[in-house]
Amino acid sequence: MTNRVPVPLAKAYRLMNHGPTVLVSSRHGDAVNVMAAAWSMPLDFDPPKVAVVIDKNTLTRSMIEGSGEFALNIPSRELARLTLQVGSTSGREVDKFAAFNAGAWTGEQVGAPLLDGCLAWLECRVLPEPHIQNTYDLFLGEVVAAWADPAVFADGHWNMAAGGKKSIHYVAGGHFFETGEAFEVPDSPR
Amino acid sequence: MTNRVPVPLAKAYRLMNHGPTVLVSSRHGDAVNVMAAAWSMPLDFDPPKVAVVIDKNTLTRSMIEGSGEFALNIPSRELARLTLQVGSTSGREVDKFAAFNAGAWTGEQVGAPLLDGCLAWLECRVLPEPHIQNTYDLFLGEVVAAWADPAVFADGHWNMAAGGKKSIHYVAGGHFFETGEAFEVPDSPR
Repeated sequence: MTNRVPVPLAKAYRLMNHGPTVLVSSRHGDAVNVMAAAWSMPLDFDPPKVAVVIDKNTLTRSMIEGSGEFALNIPSRELARLTLQVGSTSGREVDKFAAFNAGAWTGEQVGAPLLDGCLAWLECRVLPEPHIQNTYDLFLGEVVAAWADPAVFADGHWNMAAGGKKSIHYVAGGHFFETGEAFEVPDSPR
Repeated sequence: MTNRVPVPLAKAYRLMNHGPTVLVSSRHGDAVNVMAAAWSMPLDFDPPKVAVVIDKNTLTRSMIEGSGEFALNIPSRELARLTLQVGSTSGREVDKFAAFNAGAWTGEQVGAPLLDGCLAWLECRVLPEPHIQNTYDLFLGEVVAAWADPAVFADGHWNMAAGGKKSIHYVAGGHFFETGEAFEVPDSPR
């Protein structure tokens, strides 16, 4: 089981503000699936919204269009290999959860599976915008519940200390960066 | 002067794929401005496109809507303080380039100033989508030229080695992460 505590919706944007690569999970009827997405970002604070690019050719695309729901999962470095695996195979050909031995739990607001071992999770409902979905593969969602592993995110703040779990940032060709040193600019203007 | 070399457009997405915080610069007529944006992402590979959130209340918003152009600048950790400064003041009240002693150069395709000391730059033309601009403050752009400091990005690959320049990832309240250790997943599935 993965440790998790609820994150207040007004703080949910902080889970993605630093630009980590995410896993997009979905459920439609009895089917579940998961893919990787480096192209996602927060879109608003409260109620929190997100934007994510979901290619037309993916099974995830049809499942999200069918269910009107998805979840964004923020993987740790330990899940980098899984991130590549689910990003390079199609749910039309394999049951990725079985093939890659990925466990999951179910959240409270949407049916999409939430992957074990992630650092944080955002349950989302699609904000239907057919024109940009069709033209740019761009999906907007409202975050309706959020969760985090309290070892790395508590009281609205990340605590990714040296030697602990880190989120990851995909570049290309199997290359990632991990999230690096935290720092604060002294005398911040606000 | 800032060292820079052109980045082929097909590789431009790699400049932003890891989710760094960016500076959004703009020129309209004789006026120039710059703001910070943690909420930006690639939107397509080739031709490269980007998405960025630009609040209605910013001067940048009216300048981009007026000119149809903008640039995304990827600051190094040395520019974290400048990132906060330009993110917490309005170009309606101060000339940010003068007030914060920020130098800039001019690219080849758009008029927006490109800030000295950044790691990479993407010159962009707005893809007009009035509905999502008005509803979500969400702007889409096509990248029409891209540049990078060859010390950190060469031959389509980042080289942010330990001790060298790093991009940054804003969280909230003056807190950032720097881009951390690069790693490759062995036997990547593709």
